[in-house]
Amino acid sequence: MKIVKFKNFKENDSFEKFSNWLQKDLNQVNKIILETLETDSSLITELSGYIIGAGGKRIRPLLTLATAKLCEYSGNRHLSLASVIEFIHTATLLHDDVVDGSKKRRGKKTANFIWGNKSSILVGDFLLSKAFKILTNDGSLKCIDIISNVSEKISFGEVKQLMSVGNPNISEADYLDIIGYKTAELFSAACQLSAEISEVQETKKKSLKDFGYFLGISYQIIDDTLDYFSEEKISGKEIGNDFKENKMTLPLILVFNRGDKKEKNFIQYLIQDKKLNDSDFKWVIEKMKKYEVLNDCLQKARHFSIMAKDCLGTFTDNNEKKKLIGLADFLINRQK
Amino acid sequence: MKIVKFKNFKENDSFEKFSNWLQKDLNQVNKIILETLETDSSLITELSGYIIGAGGKRIRPLLTLATAKLCEYSGNRHLSLASVIEFIHTATLLHDDVVDGSKKRRGKKTANFIWGNKSSILVGDFLLSKAFKILTNDGSLKCIDIISNVSEKISFGEVKQLMSVGNPNISEADYLDIIGYKTAELFSAACQLSAEISEVQETKKKSLKDFGYFLGISYQIIDDTLDYFSEEKISGKEIGNDFKENKMTLPLILVFNRGDKKEKNFIQYLIQDKKLNDSDFKWVIEKMKKYEVLNDCLQKARHFSIMAKDCLGTFTDNNEKKKLIGLADFLINRQK
Repeated sequence: MKIVKFKNFKENDSFEKFSNWLQKDLNQVNKIILETLETDSSLITELSGYIIGAGGKRIRPLLTLATAKLCEYSGNRHLSLASVIEFIHTATLLHDDVVDGSKKRRGKKTANFIWGNKSSILVGDFLLSKAFKILTNDGSLKCIDIISNVSEKISFGEVKQLMSVGNPNISEADYLDIIGYKTAELFSAACQLSAEISEVQETKKKSLKDFGYFLGISYQIIDDTLDYFSEEKISGKEIGNDFKENKMTLPLILVFNRGDKKEKNFIQYLIQDKKLNDSDFKWVIEKMKKYEVLNDCLQKARHFSIMAKDCLGTFTDNNEKKKLIGLADFLINRQK
Repeated sequence: MKIVKFKNFKENDSFEKFSNWLQKDLNQVNKIILETLETDSSLITELSGYIIGAGGKRIRPLLTLATAKLCEYSGNRHLSLASVIEFIHTATLLHDDVVDGSKKRRGKKTANFIWGNKSSILVGDFLLSKAFKILTNDGSLKCIDIISNVSEKISFGEVKQLMSVGNPNISEADYLDIIGYKTAELFSAACQLSAEISEVQETKKKSLKDFGYFLGISYQIIDDTLDYFSEEKISGKEIGNDFKENKMTLPLILVFNRGDKKEKNFIQYLIQDKKLNDSDFKWVIEKMKKYEVLNDCLQKARHFSIMAKDCLGTFTDNNEKKKLIGLADFLINRQK
């Protein structure tokens, strides 16, 4: 995916630098993931291997690893707990793609497209169970509590989102609520696990919980913005997935709020329609330009990113903190 | 559903008697279930309320309640743990019906038929998360271990079953393996939870674990047998679901094993075919009669039911034990 340049874009904080810093731990996490997936069912091994290896950034487990370093954690538990986070995330992706009827994710065919919906549902359930199995072996009730909480919130958020499909009257507050449940809570849980096993003081636990949450919100706003403004979308090569799936995300919510009566009616008509085409998408992009939606979405993402970074104020300035701040900067400046 | 009379049928052990014995506890469990489902998402409340209230026998949570009595448990934890068992079971049903594309269960429309597959997937996830949430509140790592184990096994069994669809070469051993994972393990877990919280000695814990497992196997064999031999099926009013879904269950496995080359070939052709009709089903029933499949299925179910009952040998003969033995007898003699 190529870049649509926008104001204030910084390229100095690269994700690779961040990820390389944690490479040794990440390799261990990958090993745990692969070992956990080795079953005598080739479907489970292949399907889950495919989706977990599908080139995601591993941001969520990396957050566990990075915050463990920030908390000066010296044991090994963060490795299996990071794998728990990845399993929960992957289970969600599998079920999500079935619910959305997605054929592609990150440019690759989705698992449900290759193996069918049935397989994706059942392997998703398997991964969720495995996450709880690893947690039980870890043995901390507090960590199990963090994950059972987030798991409930994710599914609750997914249901809320499903109910909001095709409804143009979703407010910005509703939207923040939904992405809070379905994305930010897992970012938060990834950080909470490290704080928990490091036994840092309550203030720091709270800071990391909030840091993860606000980071997740800013991450999802950027994701939803890129779904309209990445180069593929702007150039007309691709229609945004959210638009195609009649989902009201921030860019569309802003246009709807700012549009005149005629524009509002047309958006209402589009979002309730099942089949959206290139020219509908082009029309919406035009309106987004008219109402300066891109810039405002980025501004809102930055707002939450700054909140996230400020949460780290309870930690002393050191290399680990700089890396996490760098990650927050990267996540709002990324192009894919 | 009406009865197809078969040899050795006993009607003296009624399920109602068993269920009435536990009614007070069961009312409490139902209350916990309803309270847990009260969310501000009407979809979750309505859909899960519909499926949980859809007239099932509540055998699994009743097992937790009954075995708690057998273990002379005097607290309240068995009530919320019984609700955990029902949540796990319901989550499985929801995902199962999507995977099987079922339109009816127990004579009522399935949730996926009314609310759509998407809702069933997400609400299933929500119920699974809730189960772990209740367990975390209960606070016993051992109970969480029992449920994370069974949750993994159920999804593993479902994947194995999915892989076996349309394959006529499933052996009786493969079949027992699959129903062990997808059914018997949850029956076992329902009993293990009571043994755990009652802190009975290890021998008794092991006995109840095995009791539940063998009871589950006998239960599922009867279920799969009724799918060919209930009056609706025998009279031709309905085609068996398993047959329609190209699933190899015990009755069909026996016919396939016993059939001559021509019959084997035809079954192979049928089971790989997507659209099975009334006359295919009639043909299969005829062959089942020819090879005395009904009687042998019942005999096998009885074999496991007797194993289950003998597991209770570690407990002194008392009213609670008699009730559980009565349940085992009812389950193999039931007609629906």
